[in-house]
Amino acid sequence: MPLSEFDLIRQYLSPAATRPDVVLGVGDDCALLATPAGYALAVSIDTLVEGVHFLQGVEPESLGHKALAVSLSDLAAMGAQPAWATLALTLPEGDSRWLEAFSRGFAELASAHGVELVGGDLTRGPRAVSVQAHGFVKPERAMRRGGAAPGELIYVTGSLGEAGLALLGLKGGYAAPEGLSRVKQRLERPRPRVDEGLALCPLATAAIDISDGLAADLGHILEASGVGATVDVEAIPLSPPVSTYVRDTGDWKLPLCAGDDYELCITVPPARRAEVERLGSGFDCGLTRIGIIDLQPGLRCRMGDGWLMEPGPGGFDHFVEP
Amino acid sequence: MPLSEFDLIRQYLSPAATRPDVVLGVGDDCALLATPAGYALAVSIDTLVEGVHFLQGVEPESLGHKALAVSLSDLAAMGAQPAWATLALTLPEGDSRWLEAFSRGFAELASAHGVELVGGDLTRGPRAVSVQAHGFVKPERAMRRGGAAPGELIYVTGSLGEAGLALLGLKGGYAAPEGLSRVKQRLERPRPRVDEGLALCPLATAAIDISDGLAADLGHILEASGVGATVDVEAIPLSPPVSTYVRDTGDWKLPLCAGDDYELCITVPPARRAEVERLGSGFDCGLTRIGIIDLQPGLRCRMGDGWLMEPGPGGFDHFVEP
Repeated sequence: MPLSEFDLIRQYLSPAATRPDVVLGVGDDCALLATPAGYALAVSIDTLVEGVHFLQGVEPESLGHKALAVSLSDLAAMGAQPAWATLALTLPEGDSRWLEAFSRGFAELASAHGVELVGGDLTRGPRAVSVQAHGFVKPERAMRRGGAAPGELIYVTGSLGEAGLALLGLKGGYAAPEGLSRVKQRLERPRPRVDEGLALCPLATAAIDISDGLAADLGHILEASGVGATVDVEAIPLSPPVSTYVRDTGDWKLPLCAGDDYELCITVPPARRAEVERLGSGFDCGLTRIGIIDLQPGLRCRMGDGWLMEPGPGGFDHFVEP
Repeated sequence: MPLSEFDLIRQYLSPAATRPDVVLGVGDDCALLATPAGYALAVSIDTLVEGVHFLQGVEPESLGHKALAVSLSDLAAMGAQPAWATLALTLPEGDSRWLEAFSRGFAELASAHGVELVGGDLTRGPRAVSVQAHGFVKPERAMRRGGAAPGELIYVTGSLGEAGLALLGLKGGYAAPEGLSRVKQRLERPRPRVDEGLALCPLATAAIDISDGLAADLGHILEASGVGATVDVEAIPLSPPVSTYVRDTGDWKLPLCAGDDYELCITVPPARRAEVERLGSGFDCGLTRIGIIDLQPGLRCRMGDGWLMEPGPGGFDHFVEP
């Protein structure tokens, strides 16, 4: 009997995690899954569409990685432990080499986080991929967006703007001095901050993952929490290529507004500053304090010259005197 | 603050069910969900792509209904009680009237089954929709595909071939005598047999929903169970338009092989025949015995003249003398 293509994916993914809490995996009408007692199930679904979220001709291995990474990043932002994933893949034609490479990228990241693929659908059509990630978190400990309070400190993991710089480079808008390979890796193979999210969970009052840019995503925390914030732009952690780019161009919009970095942005009460910074110093990616939550709504960005800038819907529309 | 489009969907869907087991719904990085103790979580994801699974220009309300229906049908085939859904919707352009109608169709079916929309993603691109349905089932009672044994009786809910006849009509291949409206309803607004699945669960040894046609889907039960079957084609329940079509054309392939009916096909031990038939006589859609599980692998269809036909991969390739 010939293997269906989803069986092919399953076969390629078999070296990935197999978990005792999967009662029934791929191959029946539904997967059957056992959630541990005392935990809530955390779920998030994300779609990547060719030409919108990834360029035509992207390496399938990178796409397999990224499709899972963006959903795991949402689990990380709740402080949830990843467990299972489902995959809805739409492809214009059958191509077993493409599928094998896609599956390899997906499986490598799944293995790294102990995630089992438990179900999916493979359909014909314009290339797109939806992944739903499923994880566990104690509901009372989950990091929500609405918990930030005035006076709390704002932190981000890793560094910002590299994915945006890579995209700019790929579109021919900027030639990064050190070449594109490192920043391209950040765009195509983001590392979801799962371990960092789990570690920060007991300390953070609010959290989000930065998929749409710091200004927009921190904005979601502010809106949900009914507060504002001031961010010190010079404190934003930048890798050398992004730092060079900003120095050369003066374009702070890149680290502030470009998406796809998948770092975490969290808020922490000032009393726990020493604790969170000790914890962050153990992160490979680092953890950097970039600002403070205010009572006054809105996001203010303090520039090096002391000016305050307010990012508006169309970018940095509004300038406010210091 | 302008509503994002997913907020719009959420707004249109707010009259649908709200459930106490949804700790946190749409609007954060993840939904947080509480699975009841002693139950497994049953999940299934399905994608419908424009031009492949639905025609361009389909009524958005019908599409909203069908996108949820096909996933609920998978829960029905496990005997699971539906609870939550997530929605990944890709649209070529923003269109609030389209979204409102889509949401209305989705919400109406969600309400009917007590399903709450707990998360999703709205993206730009070629029109497609993925829905993951989540339900609960006692793992030891779930209806799997692999439980059928020789001598067991095969039943189907409702009637077969109407969705296929509608598609044939829409493509101009056949003018149904009574017009297309009733059979079109079956294609565009399938009713997932959720209540029937829950009721049959204690009696059935195996089950599947008929999405790819009786021959293919019963074939999955046979393969998973390591058995064969003989189906009496004249026993297959047909509605008047399909019955007329088959009489006019002699085309038994339609009720046997056409997909999209979303009826359930189950197997039941002969000792429970009276019990299952009493139960089925209470179903609005009906429940019909169509054949028997055999030791000999493969699916044999007994025609009215006593001939046995074996549907092959390309349709009815193989004829076997009686």
